[in-house]
Amino acid sequence: MPKSEGAAYAPSPMPRPVVEDGEFVFAAAHLDHGHINGMTEGLLGAGGTLKWVFDSDPAKVATFREKFPQVQVARSEDEIFEDDSVHLVAGAAVTSERAALGLRTIAAGKDYFTDKAPLTTFGQLAAVREATERTGRKYAVYYSERIHVEAAVLAGQFVERGAIGRVMEVIGLGPHRLGDPDTRPAWFFEKEKYGGILCDIGSHNFEQILYYTGAKDAEIVSASIANYAHPDFPELDDYGDAHVITDNGSTGFVRVDWFTPDGLRTWGDGRTILLGTEGYIELRKYTNIATDQGPGHLFLVNDDGEQHINATGTVGYPFFGELILDCLNRTETAMTQEHALKAAELSVRAQALARVLTPSDLANAL
Amino acid sequence: MPKSEGAAYAPSPMPRPVVEDGEFVFAAAHLDHGHINGMTEGLLGAGGTLKWVFDSDPAKVATFREKFPQVQVARSEDEIFEDDSVHLVAGAAVTSERAALGLRTIAAGKDYFTDKAPLTTFGQLAAVREATERTGRKYAVYYSERIHVEAAVLAGQFVERGAIGRVMEVIGLGPHRLGDPDTRPAWFFEKEKYGGILCDIGSHNFEQILYYTGAKDAEIVSASIANYAHPDFPELDDYGDAHVITDNGSTGFVRVDWFTPDGLRTWGDGRTILLGTEGYIELRKYTNIATDQGPGHLFLVNDDGEQHINATGTVGYPFFGELILDCLNRTETAMTQEHALKAAELSVRAQALARVLTPSDLANAL
Repeated sequence: MPKSEGAAYAPSPMPRPVVEDGEFVFAAAHLDHGHINGMTEGLLGAGGTLKWVFDSDPAKVATFREKFPQVQVARSEDEIFEDDSVHLVAGAAVTSERAALGLRTIAAGKDYFTDKAPLTTFGQLAAVREATERTGRKYAVYYSERIHVEAAVLAGQFVERGAIGRVMEVIGLGPHRLGDPDTRPAWFFEKEKYGGILCDIGSHNFEQILYYTGAKDAEIVSASIANYAHPDFPELDDYGDAHVITDNGSTGFVRVDWFTPDGLRTWGDGRTILLGTEGYIELRKYTNIATDQGPGHLFLVNDDGEQHINATGTVGYPFFGELILDCLNRTETAMTQEHALKAAELSVRAQALARVLTPSDLANAL
Repeated sequence: MPKSEGAAYAPSPMPRPVVEDGEFVFAAAHLDHGHINGMTEGLLGAGGTLKWVFDSDPAKVATFREKFPQVQVARSEDEIFEDDSVHLVAGAAVTSERAALGLRTIAAGKDYFTDKAPLTTFGQLAAVREATERTGRKYAVYYSERIHVEAAVLAGQFVERGAIGRVMEVIGLGPHRLGDPDTRPAWFFEKEKYGGILCDIGSHNFEQILYYTGAKDAEIVSASIANYAHPDFPELDDYGDAHVITDNGSTGFVRVDWFTPDGLRTWGDGRTILLGTEGYIELRKYTNIATDQGPGHLFLVNDDGEQHINATGTVGYPFFGELILDCLNRTETAMTQEHALKAAELSVRAQALARVLTPSDLANAL
């Protein structure tokens, strides 16, 4: 913790469950991405009650039940939709099918919580905006690289308390490990389904740019995508980047890729760098390379000095309890609908206007 | 050093002086920027002989003579230009006057070595290109954040030896400390003279993008500048960034600023991140924040693992000896003329097309 202004920058209290057992009932439907586990754990940790699971693939259901044995297996989506006790449906469908699932969930009068990216096309975005505005139902998004990363949560608290002044720029680096392609589902490599790299893993970073700068909107001023090294998967963007200018005059830069080397001891060296007028914060979210310090690093440099804070165990994940209360009280504390969908809009827009790089063989002729 | 492939990635031998005393004579003329000291030390370390100094300000000359007491004080530029023993004139003039000094030096039949940024306008660029092509004289540039930083030199050697495969992207972060404005000369705050932040300190990073990607040319696809927090100096860009796509299909991102917080124990937390198809390199050039490890850090992550290498004392600064030999032998080993001026061209171009941000007060309403 900061020495000279410890009180000012102290983390908020760890979140506790916000409801009693049975007060907030949810279901898990469509388990195509493993994020469904984190989403479920987050809601359970905040006091939610997991009642149903549905997927057309019995193997996915069986795996889910091993983790969450209390869950009942629904025979259809409709069995969930027709259960009046269910407040919210959490889904991690194939990315291009997330909007349709959300629209069905909203039509059933329930709130929806989807894995990111929440949608893949402008048409889906328009339909989701229309449905949420018309019904008031929620289309919440699991932007896990902020809401489910303590260092990122703590950074938000520090920014809010003025630890680095006005945030002028947010850089988000999101390298990911591809791993053995055989362990990935086919849709992972089909652009129409995963949406492109800036839409998919880029969405985390567009959300963070809006969040940390406090912007309501932003412009993608440039973007590029490439397939540098995966000719067997021609629709895979293995690289993407985008330069962003926000509506309040800050900037952002996003770089995402599938090039985590085998030698890294975790899936990706995710970084977030917040440049403020009074200091800066660097997050080394999942590892502090070449040390044995594990994940969860926040570095704060301001007029008080240089500080390295291990965020693990400091702030928890208040998003989930806030989301539950938002659903029960019809508030927008966890994240506004407009923010969640604006991040999606930027993701789809960046993907749509990205220049496709055509790497030449001239490189590295130093 | 890497464990499993130590030989492959071993640094090149430390450079030694390349000439005997008196074989390569140079002068220092125009001492407006303190970089003249590093330029002089670099040439001296490579065996150069410092003969003359000239500046119209006797105080600057006196300070220089304290560091380099062997130097003779010239009464005019012409006294240097007329000395047939002088091979090269090193200058750190006001940025907007560097090209004119170079043209005078070339007209006198000598090579020129200027502080970066080497020029500030397209007109100057055209004149320098014309003069160097016509005469074959050199207009060399002190891109110190690569050529005079051992971690950056070592990174170049590692890239050349394939330690991270093909370099897809170069991110350069160049925060600088403004310090007490009263210690800065007036021209530092006059845009026509310093050239704008992307031209000035940005030039380091454009040079590095070209160098590490092996590109010959690049496009500035977007750029922005701002004065976020220095209303007393309306012509100061305190922030600048640019997104670059190179002619061989790689990308770069540059962010430069004057916001180093007082609490940082050095003038700036300069970083360079090289993303390759087979790994990545991060340079923490001047500090490894919140540690007591000093400057000079190279982090290499590839299939061999995660490695933290202190570059101090490993590779030295081969640029200076190479430059001396280039002058004597009319070669281009240290840096080609085209490369040095292409980096300048990108710097001027980024500055010219940068969007001027107009920050609003909406920021950080998390």
